[in-house]
Amino acid sequence: MTTETGTLYGVGLGPGDPDLITRRAAKLIEGADVVAYPSLAGGDSFARAIAADLISPSAREIVIDLPMTKDRAPAQAAYDLGAQAISEVLDAGQDVVALCEGDPFFYGSFMYLHARLTPKYRVEVVPGVTSVTACAALAGLPLAARNESMTILPGPLEDFALTERIRAADTLVIMKVGRHLRRLRALLTHEGLLDGAIYVERASLPNQRILPLTEAPDEAPYFSMILVTKGADPWL
Amino acid sequence: MTTETGTLYGVGLGPGDPDLITRRAAKLIEGADVVAYPSLAGGDSFARAIAADLISPSAREIVIDLPMTKDRAPAQAAYDLGAQAISEVLDAGQDVVALCEGDPFFYGSFMYLHARLTPKYRVEVVPGVTSVTACAALAGLPLAARNESMTILPGPLEDFALTERIRAADTLVIMKVGRHLRRLRALLTHEGLLDGAIYVERASLPNQRILPLTEAPDEAPYFSMILVTKGADPWL
Ligand SMILES: C[S@@+](CC[C@H](N)C(=O)[O-])C[C@H]1O[C@@H](n2cnc3c(N)ncnc32)[C@H](O)[C@@H]1O
Ligand SMILES: C[S@@+](CC[C@H](N)C(=O)[O-])C[C@H]1O[C@@H](n2cnc3c(N)ncnc32)[C@H](O)[C@@H]1O
Repeated sequence: MTTETGTLYGVGLGPGDPDLITRRAAKLIEGADVVAYPSLAGGDSFARAIAADLISPSAREIVIDLPMTKDRAPAQAAYDLGAQAISEVLDAGQDVVALCEGDPFFYGSFMYLHARLTPKYRVEVVPGVTSVTACAALAGLPLAARNESMTILPGPLEDFALTERIRAADTLVIMKVGRHLRRLRALLTHEGLLDGAIYVERASLPNQRILPLTEAPDEAPYFSMILVTKGADPWL
Repeated sequence: MTTETGTLYGVGLGPGDPDLITRRAAKLIEGADVVAYPSLAGGDSFARAIAADLISPSAREIVIDLPMTKDRAPAQAAYDLGAQAISEVLDAGQDVVALCEGDPFFYGSFMYLHARLTPKYRVEVVPGVTSVTACAALAGLPLAARNESMTILPGPLEDFALTERIRAADTLVIMKVGRHLRRLRALLTHEGLLDGAIYVERASLPNQRILPLTEAPDEAPYFSMILVTKGADPWL
């Protein structure tokens, strides 16, 4: 007798406010017997915190604890271990709901599980609200209309790669700002884009902040981004 | 005696499946006495259809009927009229919930109301799941990880503008494909990006389709996009 393997759900939770979870994600989490999520260096899991009110007290929780290193090998080993634990549940015919901040396929931790498990199991991804549109909503800043283009850049990119892409873009979003803030601000200043650049921190969370980039702290927290719209027609 | 003016909510509905509405959006729509939404040339409103099961039968509905012209003036006049009707409700102290497919500030119709009403009224934008991550989820295609950049391009852009931006991008999303599909396919072929380019139509709706771009129809419907990831490391 063979058991049918379970389904892995990669579920986007949105930017942090539990109310920005979709109805589909909420239903899947509420009904889950097994949930999986990442945590950082033995600390709390942001993903778990977003979904906390939906997780059944009887659910089994698979924690993928990621080390805080720049080297990628230890994180890869942690994902290997997590994928192994998840595959044992799937092999036994149970489903697993993997929680992911924002959207799973947009710089999301779920991609690392997906890469390891999609060849062998049924995987369904439930898209979520990304931090990009959450930050724009909070800042009251329309991102792109009509024939405008939009480019999303990770702050850790080198200056040369950033500059080239910044010049080609109409609307610019810089993610993963953190300790790169000072360098990014200098770069945007050099490109004549400092005025109108907006800094958003922890969008949709109780301690959220929106500031002109000129007033942003030199060291930003991990959950922060910069938005630049190059003078789109305000009247449309 | 002065009445306090109402709040305008710009509410993202996600890509089409009502289950991809956020909990916050659902609550606001359910509680709304007045909703507003666009429709196309006297036809049905896609936004209204997504939210249909949440709209109270007693809610007043402000329909902003957009003409099907390339000329922008008639659409602007329709938004002027809609903004006028909404401002009368807000002036009387009532809130208005404006419905918007996907995310309101990501190529969303709500931006046109926002531009007209934000100077005078309290406006709150509720971000929604965009069609971009919904299409990626459906296609099982991770969009961007680590230090990859991502560029979103409207298909109607001229070849020159497209080519320049396509070359600078790691991950490419082309929206508003429609009747531009043949030209976009030729352009991607020329750039050596045809292999692996994915075409997604009506993501999250019952008649959704995912195809390799090589097999996409020459004339695509309005709700379609092209996704190209330039060989990201699959293992991560
Ligand atoms: C690994 S990425 C995760 C992105 C996520 N999957 C999404 O869809 O938004 C982490 C980066 O997302 C951004 N971010 C995530 N949540 C945020 C929030 N609530 N406010 C501001 N930025 C946020 C920050 O730039 C952060 O460095
Ligand atoms: C005016 S824009 C609206 C975008 C929307 N505000 C969002 O956040 O996704 C319309 C374009 O979005 C894309 N689109 C919207 N919904 C879609 C869906 N369900 N499937 C595929 N593409 C979609 C198509 O490229 C379409 O031409």
